[in-house]
Amino acid sequence: MLRTHTCGELRTDHVGQTVTLAGWVIRGRDHGGLAFIDLRDRYGVTQIVFNPDRDAEMHELARTLRAEDVIQVSGEVVLRDDRENEKLATGKIEVRAHELKVLNKSKTPPFEPGTSELPNEELRLTYRFLDLRSERLQHAMLVRHRLMKLTRDYFDNLQFLEIETPILGRSTPEGARDYLVPSRVHEGAFYALPQSPQIYKQILMISGYDRYFQIARCFRDEDLRADRQPEFTQIDIEMAFVEQEDILTLIDGLMATFLKELRGEEMALPLPRYDYADVMEKYGSDKPDLRFGLELVDIGEIAGNCDFAVFKKTMESGGRVRGLNAKGAADNYSRKDIDGLTEYVGEYGAKGLAFFKVTDEGLHSPIAKFFSDEDKQKIMDAMGAEVGDLLFFVADQCAVTSAALAALRNRLGKELKLYDPSDFKCCWVVNFPLLNYNEDEQRWDAEHHPFCQPVDEDVQYFESDPAKVRAQSYDLVINGYEAASGSVRVHDQKVQQTVFDLLGISADEAEERFGFLLQALRYGAPPHAGAALGLDRLVMLLCGNDNIRDVIAFPKTQKAADLLSGAPSEVDPHQLRDLRIKVDIPQ
Amino acid sequence: MLRTHTCGELRTDHVGQTVTLAGWVIRGRDHGGLAFIDLRDRYGVTQIVFNPDRDAEMHELARTLRAEDVIQVSGEVVLRDDRENEKLATGKIEVRAHELKVLNKSKTPPFEPGTSELPNEELRLTYRFLDLRSERLQHAMLVRHRLMKLTRDYFDNLQFLEIETPILGRSTPEGARDYLVPSRVHEGAFYALPQSPQIYKQILMISGYDRYFQIARCFRDEDLRADRQPEFTQIDIEMAFVEQEDILTLIDGLMATFLKELRGEEMALPLPRYDYADVMEKYGSDKPDLRFGLELVDIGEIAGNCDFAVFKKTMESGGRVRGLNAKGAADNYSRKDIDGLTEYVGEYGAKGLAFFKVTDEGLHSPIAKFFSDEDKQKIMDAMGAEVGDLLFFVADQCAVTSAALAALRNRLGKELKLYDPSDFKCCWVVNFPLLNYNEDEQRWDAEHHPFCQPVDEDVQYFESDPAKVRAQSYDLVINGYEAASGSVRVHDQKVQQTVFDLLGISADEAEERFGFLLQALRYGAPPHAGAALGLDRLVMLLCGNDNIRDVIAFPKTQKAADLLSGAPSEVDPHQLRDLRIKVDIPQ
Repeated sequence: MLRTHTCGELRTDHVGQTVTLAGWVIRGRDHGGLAFIDLRDRYGVTQIVFNPDRDAEMHELARTLRAEDVIQVSGEVVLRDDRENEKLATGKIEVRAHELKVLNKSKTPPFEPGTSELPNEELRLTYRFLDLRSERLQHAMLVRHRLMKLTRDYFDNLQFLEIETPILGRSTPEGARDYLVPSRVHEGAFYALPQSPQIYKQILMISGYDRYFQIARCFRDEDLRADRQPEFTQIDIEMAFVEQEDILTLIDGLMATFLKELRGEEMALPLPRYDYADVMEKYGSDKPDLRFGLELVDIGEIAGNCDFAVFKKTMESGGRVRGLNAKGAADNYSRKDIDGLTEYVGEYGAKGLAFFKVTDEGLHSPIAKFFSDEDKQKIMDAMGAEVGDLLFFVADQCAVTSAALAALRNRLGKELKLYDPSDFKCCWVVNFPLLNYNEDEQRWDAEHHPFCQPVDEDVQYFESDPAKVRAQSYDLVINGYEAASGSVRVHDQKVQQTVFDLLGISADEAEERFGFLLQALRYGAPPHAGAALGLDRLVMLLCGNDNIRDVIAFPKTQKAADLLSGAPSEVDPHQLRDLRIKVDIPQ
Repeated sequence: MLRTHTCGELRTDHVGQTVTLAGWVIRGRDHGGLAFIDLRDRYGVTQIVFNPDRDAEMHELARTLRAEDVIQVSGEVVLRDDRENEKLATGKIEVRAHELKVLNKSKTPPFEPGTSELPNEELRLTYRFLDLRSERLQHAMLVRHRLMKLTRDYFDNLQFLEIETPILGRSTPEGARDYLVPSRVHEGAFYALPQSPQIYKQILMISGYDRYFQIARCFRDEDLRADRQPEFTQIDIEMAFVEQEDILTLIDGLMATFLKELRGEEMALPLPRYDYADVMEKYGSDKPDLRFGLELVDIGEIAGNCDFAVFKKTMESGGRVRGLNAKGAADNYSRKDIDGLTEYVGEYGAKGLAFFKVTDEGLHSPIAKFFSDEDKQKIMDAMGAEVGDLLFFVADQCAVTSAALAALRNRLGKELKLYDPSDFKCCWVVNFPLLNYNEDEQRWDAEHHPFCQPVDEDVQYFESDPAKVRAQSYDLVINGYEAASGSVRVHDQKVQQTVFDLLGISADEAEERFGFLLQALRYGAPPHAGAALGLDRLVMLLCGNDNIRDVIAFPKTQKAADLLSGAPSEVDPHQLRDLRIKVDIPQ
């Protein structure tokens, strides 16, 4: 070892000892004829002092050191005089250098790791090895490591087996695009990278492994959003001979473990379980941020009988009028601000945003004139309005009111600081619909995936009213993010075929895409259920971060590029010849 | 939960309790008017009894059960009468069924999981979900799980961080072929699946993570051998501010942990460290199986002065004559057997295999006549020959004698049962050459990879005699298999460029392929070293197995196909259009 201690380790107990440290120079300074260096490694920072009286040459060398140079230094641990540094764990001591060895010089870095003024992300991703030296990213990597360790310990204690499933799999597109890998041995054939180990873990249950988990890499070739990556990591679990509540309880325990071990907080269990229909009604979203209230209110009955044509017609055409009450926010939003909000809900399909300010003199609004005093009072009552409140309404088809008001709710929650950002509020949403009507393609899609077991009592609606069939599926929602998702799986080959039928997947197509699962279901499949938790997102939420790239060591940009390595890149033509493929870009 | 206990859990303590079990029917039988079922899950087997007097319908249903049906059964735990089954952990009790529910019927399986007469591997891989139910594979998966858990605990205790590196990386071919992944967003560009996280882990050291580990999936598109898979798993580690011996000690401890926790055996540490040159001399191989002796002996001096032209000429042309003594094996090998061995060493380049049987009357051999009595005595002395021994010799260039005799040594060791197959003999081989002359392409290749640090005192030979330069690299060898490999890495950008120069990699090419590593080396790279252990192989060795596919849940065939899922497969043409590629098979 090139050191006896780390840069975070020395305390007053070590005073008098001769030690050797190694690490990175943060900065140097001269003071009172001495040279000082702050030396950094993953574990902390230690101050080193070079005295020219002891060794003039060494002192001179120390004065040439620059940020990010790597050095090894031996010396004696001494108490600092009167200049203790309370911000440092090692702040009571310093090391008086006897020997200095420069292990590697650094070029002048384009930015200082850990500077509080972050340079632009593109530069930081290009020089990822510098940004990764920052406390910000080192903390995220440590939390990530600990979360993975806690996860593995948790499941190991419960007799789960960690089993690896293939990365080179078969293309079974389930909504998202597959990444493909050309096969050299089988000309013209392709592997696909897994979107999830879904089918393999079901097969493990059929194979009798009873309790499976894996921290699995998954891949989706989608157009990327801010919190998506082309490759991501999920905590993947599956259990045989269980029911929905067993999985929920299992994950409740895991979340409580995370919160206790990573943040020292207790979590009340069981986590609340909310019905999909209820959260859609109250929050307009199946992933409500429960750190604050601001619930949606239906005023359809009042709207249907008022004189405001927009409200009235919406009700007549089978739509809804719903709103929310931004308590005490009447003065926070100018007319111009509200124009901005109107534009914002427009992105979610709302054609307008009605509003009322609640004043001493009642409701103020450009549309107030369309409402009788009685209607106004009814609205006030329905919304629990008080002087100073700001009421917003959207009139449209149900789905649009949900989407627009859910977005508005999240925005107001943030702007009005209705919650403590460090709060960690979890709930389960259950009883999702099994199917989702795809208006564009005029067919039913699976809400989660095609392997969810329907709720037993809803099977009767399979033919008559598929929209009514609920799935035994569940999402864990944290602070408005979907953090986990799962379901009881179909274990009966006939039920599976019925679901495929509803999805318009013919027996032939099912056999082609999922034949190996259908085959396995014929040879003794136990009832089973499982879930997958988005690990990157969990780490992000537990770190109180909102950039998924800050919790991944080597992330990709929103254009799916790795700016550090330069991937993807052109390759040698002979590689493509070996694979029997050709690039084919249309002019 | 659909059960109260597992099928491996019930003991005499449970007698009198009402329990519910769920699992797979192994077989049923009738005896004394009762129906018996052996019920299996991952945890064990429990006998269930159905009494027609209690419930005639249930008894009838039980009699219809067939192998691999999945059932749930409730009943009372009772002591078995006089028919205890000592082979079963649950053999003292049985469950008298009150209730039986068939959860899923199975078609008649093409083979019984766990049958002692294994059907052919192709059938077993196609019905992998059945084979995975066998005790053989369930044991392997359990060992694999435990080995992974032990690994993570071991490194976590030593402050290593588990950090994930990308699967979608940049193509930096290092000998083996890359698997490529076309990018949809960047037309004509490709990602490559990692052959190892080598460069990323070096960058993590440069980023200050100090101690990294990962159980990482790696990919090589090579023509497959029996113990190779296109995707495999390695225990990947890297440490900063350490020297070679630190890594060896670290892995010594890991191996001792495995042996103790998985086999209850103590391991003497440190593991022996042998010089590459020494093992090549003694065993002809850099991965010697140390479970037995049978060391190679050089008889060059005798051969150079004898009358046997083959020996004499070989010595004159700078070759070597080496042999080994199969103690007491003279009667084990007929002339025909020896012809077989001659053919066998021919596969390793040997043009012949000389042999002598040691009898009461001296050395017997077709070539004995070419040797004087004195020469014969010298050979006997050199080989430590005694009556009944069988001596083999190969005369050729040094590398051929090594390869041929190493192969012969392994074959004789096995055929003569010179070792206990369950033995677990580890050693380190150190001081590998840095470079390897590639005769075909007339250039130097890296023996391990281009990032190995040369031995300091050998740097002087860089220009004059590159073959003489040793690397600070090391292999862990277990029972003749390379189980781990690693090195101290180059941390100086100039040294790295010198190595690239020797390998004929120009500055431009180096920049193109490894630019991001070279760039990182310029900004404060600490000395660092690491290793990678082949996890699949370790599990195989610890299970005493010799088929790598038996320790992987979903392995691929030697033609890189997954017979269960049918991967690789043809894909939908629109997938290829999206990716801007075309299949291009020459006629």
